[in-house]
Amino acid sequence: MSEPYTLILLRHGNSEWNRKNLFTGWVDVPLSELGVAEATRAGELLLESGLEPDVLYTSRLKRAISTANLALDVADRSWIDVKRSWRLNERHYGALQGKDKVQTLAEYGPEQFQTWRRSFDVPPPPIADDDEFSQVGDPRYADLGDGIPRTECLKDVIERMLPYWESDIAVDLRAGKTVLVTAHGNSLRALVKHLDGISDDDIAELNIPTGIPLVYRLDESLSPIGAGEYLDPEAAAAGAAAVAAQGEKK
Amino acid sequence: MSEPYTLILLRHGNSEWNRKNLFTGWVDVPLSELGVAEATRAGELLLESGLEPDVLYTSRLKRAISTANLALDVADRSWIDVKRSWRLNERHYGALQGKDKVQTLAEYGPEQFQTWRRSFDVPPPPIADDDEFSQVGDPRYADLGDGIPRTECLKDVIERMLPYWESDIAVDLRAGKTVLVTAHGNSLRALVKHLDGISDDDIAELNIPTGIPLVYRLDESLSPIGAGEYLDPEAAAAGAAAVAAQGEKK
Repeated sequence: MSEPYTLILLRHGNSEWNRKNLFTGWVDVPLSELGVAEATRAGELLLESGLEPDVLYTSRLKRAISTANLALDVADRSWIDVKRSWRLNERHYGALQGKDKVQTLAEYGPEQFQTWRRSFDVPPPPIADDDEFSQVGDPRYADLGDGIPRTECLKDVIERMLPYWESDIAVDLRAGKTVLVTAHGNSLRALVKHLDGISDDDIAELNIPTGIPLVYRLDESLSPIGAGEYLDPEAAAAGAAAVAAQGEKK
Repeated sequence: MSEPYTLILLRHGNSEWNRKNLFTGWVDVPLSELGVAEATRAGELLLESGLEPDVLYTSRLKRAISTANLALDVADRSWIDVKRSWRLNERHYGALQGKDKVQTLAEYGPEQFQTWRRSFDVPPPPIADDDEFSQVGDPRYADLGDGIPRTECLKDVIERMLPYWESDIAVDLRAGKTVLVTAHGNSLRALVKHLDGISDDDIAELNIPTGIPLVYRLDESLSPIGAGEYLDPEAAAAGAAAVAAQGEKK
């Protein structure tokens, strides 16, 4: 039997806008102090686990990039190859980007709020190109041209993420590399949905905690051998509950 | 007339072993506090210059990688593509790795010392494979197999660096990308020797200061249009003088 492949998923730590309880999406906000601490802790967990990533994948957003840089510094793996893609970005939150979550909940009511947050295929209203939180014209997405998203639902995230999984991440896994993907709540949710075969209805209930590496062992067809395992299961359970409670924050 | 190409060279900031005045070479030591400050300053200089790197090249050594990460964070360009190669590593200092520079000078005399530091084609004695400062068996050089260096002169550095320049860096430049190369005293000396056509004899006199971006404008054949320019010429002159004086430190 050949060795299984190893995939490590890491959701970025708390950002300045998590702290302020704003919808972030593609807005490029830095980690908060708590996020820096979470990233450092993620590096310690990697180091303790003995897992040694050979290649890093990140989104184009600094909260994921900084999380990866900090964690790999601690794990003494900052020298590994790096690949970045907008296809691993957070879901584009459309016109909600930059909006306060509590205020949005109050303004639109819990049903609409929950639809925008968790619906599989209903995106929020698109953001205007001249909105201060639009990414139209951002040099980091120059190669997307006018195809740059103005809003996305989870289905859209899956559709833009999966081709990259196939073209790049899966190729590195099949080459026997231990792959670390440092990304976002919804791009990782999209990946876990694919890996674990979670239904469109059930995926809304999956909450991935920040800053705790989630390890999958995959067989030759890149199907998971058992469930993904968090390197700190207790902290992961607490973190997932905290994510689920977001938006109800007073 | 087409726009010239832009190449930015950045030597990593002060490391823990610069501070201790030890020969470092391929030993993977972190930046000192001063080095962190230098890297941050390099990022500020990049930001002020309006130069916007599209792709980053680094060695496999953390003092270069951390310098690049810190500088690009400050310049808000941490999202750019990254490529790393051992071909941009510092010169392998052979058996001198881990040795005190002042002690080495005292032990072998100024002539031998200067030959090891500055000879174009005389490498120091090779390091033993079981030396604590050998890189044999280091996973980051696994693909080198037994071809991993045990010592290098500047000529060796040029011979392993230039193929990478041609295969990767030059290709990105010709595609119109602004390229940032964050590397080391001798790998950058090798590159500048190539760009400026400096003779084997004269290259010993070239001292590249740490932490100050050096900008080349290149024509279509990747020949420099004028001299490379430091983004902070005064600090660069002072820094180069300090590098030249190394080893005479009491």
